[in-house]
Amino acid sequence: MKRVYLDHNATTPLRPEARDAMIAAMDIAGNPSSVHSEGRAAKSLVEKARAQVASALGADGADVVFTSSATEAAALFCAAQKLQGADVEHDAVGAWIDPSLSVDENGLVTVTDPGQSTLQLANSETGVIQTLPEGLALSDMTQAFGKLPLAFNWSGCTAALISAHKLGGPKGIGALVIKRGTDVAAQLKGGGQEMGRRAGTENTIGIAGFGAAAEAAARDLADGAWDKVAQIRDRMEAAIAEAAPDTIFVGQRANRLPNTSCFATPGWKGETQVMQMDLAGFAISAGSACSSGKVRASKVLTAMGYGEDVASSAIRVSLGVETAEEDVMRFVETWLQKRKKFHARAA
Amino acid sequence: MKRVYLDHNATTPLRPEARDAMIAAMDIAGNPSSVHSEGRAAKSLVEKARAQVASALGADGADVVFTSSATEAAALFCAAQKLQGADVEHDAVGAWIDPSLSVDENGLVTVTDPGQSTLQLANSETGVIQTLPEGLALSDMTQAFGKLPLAFNWSGCTAALISAHKLGGPKGIGALVIKRGTDVAAQLKGGGQEMGRRAGTENTIGIAGFGAAAEAAARDLADGAWDKVAQIRDRMEAAIAEAAPDTIFVGQRANRLPNTSCFATPGWKGETQVMQMDLAGFAISAGSACSSGKVRASKVLTAMGYGEDVASSAIRVSLGVETAEEDVMRFVETWLQKRKKFHARAA
Repeated sequence: MKRVYLDHNATTPLRPEARDAMIAAMDIAGNPSSVHSEGRAAKSLVEKARAQVASALGADGADVVFTSSATEAAALFCAAQKLQGADVEHDAVGAWIDPSLSVDENGLVTVTDPGQSTLQLANSETGVIQTLPEGLALSDMTQAFGKLPLAFNWSGCTAALISAHKLGGPKGIGALVIKRGTDVAAQLKGGGQEMGRRAGTENTIGIAGFGAAAEAAARDLADGAWDKVAQIRDRMEAAIAEAAPDTIFVGQRANRLPNTSCFATPGWKGETQVMQMDLAGFAISAGSACSSGKVRASKVLTAMGYGEDVASSAIRVSLGVETAEEDVMRFVETWLQKRKKFHARAA
Repeated sequence: MKRVYLDHNATTPLRPEARDAMIAAMDIAGNPSSVHSEGRAAKSLVEKARAQVASALGADGADVVFTSSATEAAALFCAAQKLQGADVEHDAVGAWIDPSLSVDENGLVTVTDPGQSTLQLANSETGVIQTLPEGLALSDMTQAFGKLPLAFNWSGCTAALISAHKLGGPKGIGALVIKRGTDVAAQLKGGGQEMGRRAGTENTIGIAGFGAAAEAAARDLADGAWDKVAQIRDRMEAAIAEAAPDTIFVGQRANRLPNTSCFATPGWKGETQVMQMDLAGFAISAGSACSSGKVRASKVLTAMGYGEDVASSAIRVSLGVETAEEDVMRFVETWLQKRKKFHARAA
């Protein structure tokens, strides 16, 4: 049976453009720090990708510091300071912050001191989109980049986190994007790569894939690819709401990413749903990927005021630009069948 | 004109086995932290590579913590303590240590307190191999792994640094190898990947490449591929010594990596030699790749007691298993011509 992958917020399939760029980069043997011809070719690969990423993010003129992940980018920006943030932040940011900012029932965060705060642009579990206040120190744009029209240069942020594997690039490459002139002390020391912000020989193949994926994602976005995705997501939610009216759609009243749906069936554990749907051929998730495996209530939903019963019984369905409507509707049908069995057993 | 790449200690061309494994990994879409089928497939890719690396390094039963580079692995192990070391260490280690250990004229380091010390197994610039004392806290095995028969489990070290791109794997992936049970606090926090030692979604494609490259490198080593390389290196040095008897071969009286030659022509700047040889079609280096571009005396040679005149006039020629003897001899011929011109100008 054909598998249906509906977990794009966890990670995306590699775009053909990224694949081609990575395979081409495999033939560039040099070290970007070497001064000879082979080294300069590798350096030029890195700089081409840096320009592609900056352009796709509307960050021309800003510094794009390639890191091994958005997680590393978060550590690089956050470790030396104690920013304020909310409990809806990804753990990679949450690990460093003072989680004092309040979250309302729609998932929206109130920032009181932007210059000392971090706020994600979109939430990975719910898709809820925040309005970023002017002068924000940091925004985690990992989920939004590639799915929403956005420009770092117009965002009013000093810094942003991004990751390749959320927009069709490879896993293991991300970036800290910072306004030029912002002071960031390297945590990885040694060779002085990335303008002294991050030592270590560059992941040239991954970087080439990031650049190509960012460029392709920006093109898809401009072509309106996500409008179609939002329509499919909305039809999916409507079909579920009609057949299972007690389903709780999380964040539905806020602006959301076009591809994300989070919904809870109290009592039916999210992890159980994930396993049942996996056996039936559908990849979905409960909570974010990195905290999956740990069966526990979603921190994000708890922060929004949901009780343990809802927060532990939610699943996330996240679509990609290549997701077909008929596959999503097949998911709905299968999920409704499983739900009926759950209620039959629970009765 | 065919380029001749003689800078394998800076970085190596990608082995076909690594290339194939990486291209295969491109089709594995899941996030290794996801519990569904796609996620488990990605996880299994990572674990296969972890076993391949452990086996190639003689580290079965030890923990292989994948990082984005040996530089990151050094930071992970060294940042929380102040190990003693010598000035011949790579900058990625040197950035964290108390550089109090003495170095002799052959490049050999005397360790006084192994449990509080770090010592590289082989030097990237000179190829000089150290005898590791029992109970050493850390050894940078980056240059030795794949070129020397070695077993982490027999090394007496608590931890080791390794990197894929020095043995035919991709750039941007390395590992900290540690005796099981050793306490290492994560610097990258969030998702709890790599047994809680290193958060961030795994670089699955790079990791697959590392595993395949390590396996292939171990096979080449067992097949005696480096014996042939050492013969070519020795013939190269003999040819140079005969035609240019005042050439200073650095570390030649110590045990060295089979592929590395470092030699100085006082007065003829290393960087100048690199550029002249680059124009003539040969990629070599002066000092380590990450400090190249910065024209300065080699810290390694200075630590061995060489004066500024020698330390700033050395080049490194480092061969690979695929290097052809005739290409190396063509290098010698060209280099001797340039040297003659240098002396003519200097006269």
